[in-house]
Amino acid sequence: MAFEIPQTEFDRRIAAVQAELARRDLDALIVFGHDSESHNIRYLADYWPAFESAGVLVPVEGTPMLLIGPESLTYARSRTRLPEIRQLIAYRESSEPEYPGVKLPTFADVFDEVSGGKGIKRLGMAASAITSVPVYLGIQEAMAGGEIVKADDLLIGMRMEKSEVEIAAIREAFRVAALAIKAILEEMKPGMTELQVVGIAQREIYAHGGEYEGHPLYVLSGEHSSHAIGRPMHRVLEKGQVVQLSIGAKVAGYTSSIGRCVALGQVPADVRKLLEVALDAEKKTMELIKAGVSAGWISQQVAEYVASRGMADKLLYGPCHGIGLMECEHPWMETSSTYLLKPNMTFQIDSFLHTDTYGARFEDGVRVTETGVEEFPTYRREVITL
Amino acid sequence: MAFEIPQTEFDRRIAAVQAELARRDLDALIVFGHDSESHNIRYLADYWPAFESAGVLVPVEGTPMLLIGPESLTYARSRTRLPEIRQLIAYRESSEPEYPGVKLPTFADVFDEVSGGKGIKRLGMAASAITSVPVYLGIQEAMAGGEIVKADDLLIGMRMEKSEVEIAAIREAFRVAALAIKAILEEMKPGMTELQVVGIAQREIYAHGGEYEGHPLYVLSGEHSSHAIGRPMHRVLEKGQVVQLSIGAKVAGYTSSIGRCVALGQVPADVRKLLEVALDAEKKTMELIKAGVSAGWISQQVAEYVASRGMADKLLYGPCHGIGLMECEHPWMETSSTYLLKPNMTFQIDSFLHTDTYGARFEDGVRVTETGVEEFPTYRREVITL
Repeated sequence: MAFEIPQTEFDRRIAAVQAELARRDLDALIVFGHDSESHNIRYLADYWPAFESAGVLVPVEGTPMLLIGPESLTYARSRTRLPEIRQLIAYRESSEPEYPGVKLPTFADVFDEVSGGKGIKRLGMAASAITSVPVYLGIQEAMAGGEIVKADDLLIGMRMEKSEVEIAAIREAFRVAALAIKAILEEMKPGMTELQVVGIAQREIYAHGGEYEGHPLYVLSGEHSSHAIGRPMHRVLEKGQVVQLSIGAKVAGYTSSIGRCVALGQVPADVRKLLEVALDAEKKTMELIKAGVSAGWISQQVAEYVASRGMADKLLYGPCHGIGLMECEHPWMETSSTYLLKPNMTFQIDSFLHTDTYGARFEDGVRVTETGVEEFPTYRREVITL
Repeated sequence: MAFEIPQTEFDRRIAAVQAELARRDLDALIVFGHDSESHNIRYLADYWPAFESAGVLVPVEGTPMLLIGPESLTYARSRTRLPEIRQLIAYRESSEPEYPGVKLPTFADVFDEVSGGKGIKRLGMAASAITSVPVYLGIQEAMAGGEIVKADDLLIGMRMEKSEVEIAAIREAFRVAALAIKAILEEMKPGMTELQVVGIAQREIYAHGGEYEGHPLYVLSGEHSSHAIGRPMHRVLEKGQVVQLSIGAKVAGYTSSIGRCVALGQVPADVRKLLEVALDAEKKTMELIKAGVSAGWISQQVAEYVASRGMADKLLYGPCHGIGLMECEHPWMETSSTYLLKPNMTFQIDSFLHTDTYGARFEDGVRVTETGVEEFPTYRREVITL
């Protein structure tokens, strides 16, 4: 039986959004999602758009609506947890098909309908970082005379502390990722391409119950291990290189990632040193995480630790970021962070050091507890030599 | 040796954009792309963003720029074909990391720089259907006093007729997809889940030289075969069901898709009839395609053919759409289409018929020629029974 988020969880989320809308004197919340950034739509509706984009519209009182494009109706009906679905042209594919003769509602129509005819005077908007221009302009036009209020923090806040069922999904996603890492370490060797190694991970993810990759998978060899963000290519792995692996799976929308550096045989001393410091910094970070501790303080401590090992100039960003419906979600831990850790926040420790020509990254997931962390399933947290 | 688009092709594209900007009296063109909609960025820069989004800024004269987020620099340097790269906060991840202490240019800065200090008075904007709100607002702010001109058609027009090398990439992507379909037909059986079948396709795509799935893969069983757009789930395949497969690979950014309906044993007569009409409609479409013919006329002919078989109410959209850097790109063929087909346009025939409870889809790719079509590599264009 596949892992599923129960309907009660979705009902609880909608009720929490509506309570917060009332508190903020907002008439409704609208959020956006697309293929590769579906998190908020998944969170509220369990819907995952493909080709077309999607929205969720939650009124302060009454029934929320899933907003989809013209072609997703039978699909959306089969999977969304929301009772109402409306098709709007603004969510169509970016190749802009025309659907001659098809009549669809406008944003004004759905705003009117969702509010029971009262209309929406103050609309909260979340996910504006990814909302598309046609949706944004469509909302603006429908809200003429009303007010659009930035409300990203509403969902960010709700999503930050995870429920038991969310934690179980993340745990399961890490279990699958660990199996993919294990298979890669058994099969990877010089002469294969980075993309062939990705193929091993993909095979394992689907074989063990994943529904997708957790994020664009990293198999970055040699110089490409210096990439903070990267994509695998048809590069042939060579003896003497380091391969940076970041492998994640998705389970019921929740994601994982395990980051490992693998030396293909002997590597130069300076490269080896970078790998060791990145690994030690990951362990150090894990020791510092605990409910009640300041995120900024942890980030500062880790930066100082890396500096004490002579690698201050090789740090690009803070030691952790949130993990959940995205591999990288709010909140980040930076030296500028001011929040305190709370139980059941889930973090991805992302210990990345780099020069212009090589890099080192170790990544594992943890749940914050009163006494420290629960480590999510993992595999060989060490400098690996094949 | 992996398939690659040569540098001369990118130089030719930039020159063509600049010539068109001059003709339209525009000072520059800006386009946007993200993880799952990278096509325009790939077209102009061979760059494929991950986690962060990206832009390309082409001045009417001088050197174009790739615009990226704060973390993608070493990655972007390793793969873009453009000589200049700038990092802007507007392209950061949607989880909004803060990068304390990092100083980055604004849109006003890069507009000034790309124009050689002259500034941009008239800016063409393409890809607005997917552009994010932070990028859109950043551009608007920098263009205060100037003019933003919708210029989607500029790139759409350039991308519609494919070059020899583009056609070769698409042909290769279809070769890989056909191998994935073949493997699925050898291994798929009742008792497996839809997602396990996706795992077979993923394994084959990477084993045969693909760089990614060509689009979200479809393995949609039973009732879910009715989905015009869908996503595979942990549904167990059952005897007596139809499975809708749409499997595509990506090669050097170019994509393919082969759509097949597979009956797992005996299926009801009405389902069988729908499969046969969808297949016949695909063949009919292929016979009609030829340079000089009207897209609207083809769409009308196919609609009439489907109606003559008693299935007019089972059609959702026109019989073809463009294929290239997206599985579904401009132009669509609809009864409302007014353009004529030209040699080297590439189309995906997408013959989809559905009721509320089952559906049928056959898909193959073709290149328009003076005398008809070149069919891209395919496999078993027939109603398949396992």
